[in-house]
Amino acid sequence: MNALSHPSASGTLSEQLDLKSLGHELYAIVQDLYPLCRSITGEGLRDTLRAVDRVAGVEIHEVPSGTRAFDWTVPKEWNIKAAYIADVQGRKIIDFKNSNLHVVGYSTPIRKRVARAELLQHVYTHPGNPDWIPYRNSYYKETWGFCVTQKQLAALTDAEYDVCIDSTLADGSLSYGETLLPGATQREVLISTHACHPSLCNDNLSGIAVAALLARQLRTVRTRYSYRFLFIPCTIGPIAWLSANQPATSRIDHGLVLACLGDAGGMTYLRSRRATAEIDRAVQHVLGHSGQAHEIRPFSPYGYDQRQYCSPGFNLAMGCLMRTPNGEYPEYHTSADNLDKVRPEFLADSFAKILATLCILEDNRHYVSAVQHGEPHLGRRGLYDKAQEFGLFWLLNYSDGQHSLLDIAEISGVAFNKLAAGVRMLQAVDLLDEATPSLAHVNTSER
Amino acid sequence: MNALSHPSASGTLSEQLDLKSLGHELYAIVQDLYPLCRSITGEGLRDTLRAVDRVAGVEIHEVPSGTRAFDWTVPKEWNIKAAYIADVQGRKIIDFKNSNLHVVGYSTPIRKRVARAELLQHVYTHPGNPDWIPYRNSYYKETWGFCVTQKQLAALTDAEYDVCIDSTLADGSLSYGETLLPGATQREVLISTHACHPSLCNDNLSGIAVAALLARQLRTVRTRYSYRFLFIPCTIGPIAWLSANQPATSRIDHGLVLACLGDAGGMTYLRSRRATAEIDRAVQHVLGHSGQAHEIRPFSPYGYDQRQYCSPGFNLAMGCLMRTPNGEYPEYHTSADNLDKVRPEFLADSFAKILATLCILEDNRHYVSAVQHGEPHLGRRGLYDKAQEFGLFWLLNYSDGQHSLLDIAEISGVAFNKLAAGVRMLQAVDLLDEATPSLAHVNTSER
Amino acid sequence: MNALSHPSASGTLSEQLDLKSLGHELYAIVQDLYPLCRSITGEGLRDTLRAVDRVAGVEIHEVPSGTRAFDWTVPKEWNIKAAYIADVQGRKIIDFKNSNLHVVGYSTPIRKRVARAELLQHVYTHPGNPDWIPYRNSYYKETWGFCVTQKQLAALTDAEYDVCIDSTLADGSLSYGETLLPGATQREVLISTHACHPSLCNDNLSGIAVAALLARQLRTVRTRYSYRFLFIPCTIGPIAWLSANQPATSRIDHGLVLACLGDAGGMTYLRSRRATAEIDRAVQHVLGHSGQAHEIRPFSPYGYDQRQYCSPGFNLAMGCLMRTPNGEYPEYHTSADNLDKVRPEFLADSFAKILATLCILEDNRHYVSAVQHGEPHLGRRGLYDKAQEFGLFWLLNYSDGQHSLLDIAEISGVAFNKLAAGVRMLQAVDLLDEATPSLAHVNTSER
Repeated sequence: MNALSHPSASGTLSEQLDLKSLGHELYAIVQDLYPLCRSITGEGLRDTLRAVDRVAGVEIHEVPSGTRAFDWTVPKEWNIKAAYIADVQGRKIIDFKNSNLHVVGYSTPIRKRVARAELLQHVYTHPGNPDWIPYRNSYYKETWGFCVTQKQLAALTDAEYDVCIDSTLADGSLSYGETLLPGATQREVLISTHACHPSLCNDNLSGIAVAALLARQLRTVRTRYSYRFLFIPCTIGPIAWLSANQPATSRIDHGLVLACLGDAGGMTYLRSRRATAEIDRAVQHVLGHSGQAHEIRPFSPYGYDQRQYCSPGFNLAMGCLMRTPNGEYPEYHTSADNLDKVRPEFLADSFAKILATLCILEDNRHYVSAVQHGEPHLGRRGLYDKAQEFGLFWLLNYSDGQHSLLDIAEISGVAFNKLAAGVRMLQAVDLLDEATPSLAHVNTSER
Repeated sequence: MNALSHPSASGTLSEQLDLKSLGHELYAIVQDLYPLCRSITGEGLRDTLRAVDRVAGVEIHEVPSGTRAFDWTVPKEWNIKAAYIADVQGRKIIDFKNSNLHVVGYSTPIRKRVARAELLQHVYTHPGNPDWIPYRNSYYKETWGFCVTQKQLAALTDAEYDVCIDSTLADGSLSYGETLLPGATQREVLISTHACHPSLCNDNLSGIAVAALLARQLRTVRTRYSYRFLFIPCTIGPIAWLSANQPATSRIDHGLVLACLGDAGGMTYLRSRRATAEIDRAVQHVLGHSGQAHEIRPFSPYGYDQRQYCSPGFNLAMGCLMRTPNGEYPEYHTSADNLDKVRPEFLADSFAKILATLCILEDNRHYVSAVQHGEPHLGRRGLYDKAQEFGLFWLLNYSDGQHSLLDIAEISGVAFNKLAAGVRMLQAVDLLDEATPSLAHVNTSER
Repeated sequence: MNALSHPSASGTLSEQLDLKSLGHELYAIVQDLYPLCRSITGEGLRDTLRAVDRVAGVEIHEVPSGTRAFDWTVPKEWNIKAAYIADVQGRKIIDFKNSNLHVVGYSTPIRKRVARAELLQHVYTHPGNPDWIPYRNSYYKETWGFCVTQKQLAALTDAEYDVCIDSTLADGSLSYGETLLPGATQREVLISTHACHPSLCNDNLSGIAVAALLARQLRTVRTRYSYRFLFIPCTIGPIAWLSANQPATSRIDHGLVLACLGDAGGMTYLRSRRATAEIDRAVQHVLGHSGQAHEIRPFSPYGYDQRQYCSPGFNLAMGCLMRTPNGEYPEYHTSADNLDKVRPEFLADSFAKILATLCILEDNRHYVSAVQHGEPHLGRRGLYDKAQEFGLFWLLNYSDGQHSLLDIAEISGVAFNKLAAGVRMLQAVDLLDEATPSLAHVNTSER
């Protein structure tokens, strides 16, 4: 029984994982959310958060347009009903109904006949992939535009077209979903995923699906840490949240930004700005012991929302976990990042690795051997045969109060979960004690 | 003249080594001790210690059965006179006289006719090597057993056999040999080798032989450090010694556990738990400059008696020096670890490397250049031509009181013994002085 | 505009470099100085310094023979007018007029007929290169000698020869050139090159030429640091200078010893004894971003004058920059280190890399982002498109007052000059401020 399991549960949380059915559940969420036209504000985003709420239970927060957040201002809310480019005979050549990527995000409303030359200044394609529609938006500069395939562009040969974007850009609010799952202490782990991309699967429905089921799973068990989940529009979302919750950030001990978790590539982890935080070491341990190709990279202020959480004024111990990173797979930010790009088995594999990481955070404590001088006599306690597999002599030798379980895992090369099992064996024969309660603030408000 | 030589001696200790005759002397000790049936207690162990005493001069200590030592209790003393498996016609099929490995160490006495099926539950072979007898013991669980070759096992086809083990397991004592060779100071180097294995040559008669001749050699010279040697049963031996000598351990500055020193493999060194102790760096220097394949590994709480000396309550600066490590050569703990497995030249090579390591410990001091500003004018002192070979400018530049001779050897890549010779050249022209006495406690009881 | 440029200048210093014409200027200096017979004292050295003065403006200092300098004494001054080996018919076989390498430096005067056997004891060749004359000297042991090619040696078959060395070795002085270019502060960068080798181009007319034009260039711009240049005989020169200027050395923050800068090899840098000084990191950055093969080596107390500047009593942050190091190209210290060994393009390349290094020293400061919480909104300031190229988010994230610009360059992998340009962009929109004045002592004596 590890820390991420209810005292009355029979097995460990990770042993209970049925990766196959979990993969299908994750993929079903991606399928369900795929058609919605998300943006950093608006009804598509709200519908997404409502769906997440049904799975994981989140509260939907609204931040009014115009709210100041550090160097930023929450923008107007954008909604869209329909959009098309039609020939003068009224035949729709490009229709938002076919793909919500066809419209540049945050396009201002327009309904007029335009000359071909003018139209082409508002039409974007994906160079090199003539069949793909690119994904574009213009949050902070008011304009309108269409994204089309190269083939569609080539077909726009008429002199004039009727363009229509039936959108609104008006004061409203920015929405995000949040839930806090209280643990034994008030120290927090923050899981954040952006939720603002339209019909794009790997970036970032994969992150939404994985985070949603993680929250659902964690809700069923007792934990040492409290877990906070954010489903939030990128950049402005975390900036607004951080601005409104600045004092609360001091409770965040560890965190992960999740994105691009469903493709076939190996895992990629961007370390926190602190570089050697416990979360960094925990992820590195899980990936290192996975036996699978993976990559550990230093922190970068480019990419996903670690940019905000790791800004110098916060410098939270948060890394970014992905499979293939943003911009490094050809389908990135195009219509080809579709339901074929992500697979149930990769979603489930990502989920399992994150859960294993959280298990390390939960179980990583300092212990003290009852016998500090010489090794204890394991033979007379019936444990000698288990010493090798569970790293018992590593645990006994390095449990001097100075080395955490993760330290010992790194020193010994023994897998953390084997050592954690070894701890329980040694505790059962009174050879190991927890050094001191690791977390100062105990949570009195139990779930 | 280095520190490991008497002031009146003409050459350095290491120069005086005749590796060929030394190898033969080492091998002769192995040959002499090979037939004895050692265990962690008993007459075979005592006979071994008496032989060591004749070579190196050691005091034989006895720790009574039942003595508590940290988490352990000194076991009963085991002795054996004879043992066999005979057919009902009285023909001895397996006889302890042929190999003391035939009897499981610490076998309880038995003399009865047993059915084949019962017998086979007490017979052990070495899977994969049908001609080898495995080595087994059962110190802390009373039982009896025989170790045989696969061929011998196959021949046990009769319905019944007479088994006899003429052993005693009774209160007595655990024996070990110890000697302290006082040096100029009371700071100690501890050399420990286990002495409890029966007819097994590499593990560990090789260690006994090397340690015995090292003690003999060190007895003839003046040293800065005091040298303590322990010839002691593994695990319980060091635990008992540490338990009885706990205050004395504070005088131990460096140490080595010796084992498996006679095979053809390259040297392997397990660092101390401190990882970068002076002994770790000294061994690494010697092996690194040997030009021979070798391996430096981190500390491990598995293996030989560094497990006890490096338990967290002691954490002594002791590493473990071997050629091929325990368990990593096929003959390990079998009858094939015999007189063919070890060779005079490898024993002598191990000896020389340990001695070179001790020379570094003896000579590793801090010096201060007389000229701290600019380099001294070596030309007018006739030393310019020697500057390259003996690293004179390295010595002069880094002898700022902050860098030890071993530091300078590591920085410069110049061999420690060349630098030590350079120190003597520079001292002769008053360009170098010892910084401050390196060892605080001066030994007033000279040998 | 970077720091190494006058406020009123239109472009950066490095952009203004015309490497082709610079290369020719550098090579012309080498050509001009090649015929002079330099030594560690004497008129050849003085003529060289006068030539440097004409280019760069230096003051020529004289240190009288017999002056004590730490462990050394300034030697007598050596001058030479003519020298030859002639046969008894008066035909000059070896003539100093043909190569000043023919005479061992500091040869005492001689004019006599000598037997062949005696002569040969004073004649040196370069083993392995029969056509090259070796370079030799004997500063501190009075003797005389000739250096010749193997062919010339083979031709000395007569029984007797007339030898003549028309030299003087008498009290005089050691000369060196020095200039201090005051900057905004009194903190100094010291550029030192030895100036004592006779007709040898790479070692070390290349260093003299590069240092002279560097001084000329720096004289035309405003700088933060003050720049001191030394053109000085090797070993005894820096020792004499350090001895006479010991208090002034506390103002030296960074420095470079220059040598062997004109050959076709890649750059080689010997780190300062401090190993990770700012100068070490600046050079490493420039070489690392050059895209060219290069080598960074640890400090060595062998080689050029870093031996003196980095002696423990000074331990200045000075490295040694070369292309192919001393002793590692076959022509080293032979007549083949001639005008063919160095090329204008390599001299100019060395010059450019040193200048780029100095630009880093000038521009390396600590900044503080105006926005510490979350990233600033670059889009509304029109800078978002430049964020990638100029590392703007790296600058904003790491400008926390703890990281210097060079730190950020190392962390991000972005070239220092790109970041420096990014600093100016961010300063222009008030997003970045200098943390605190980096240099404590402001120079009130402006040039």
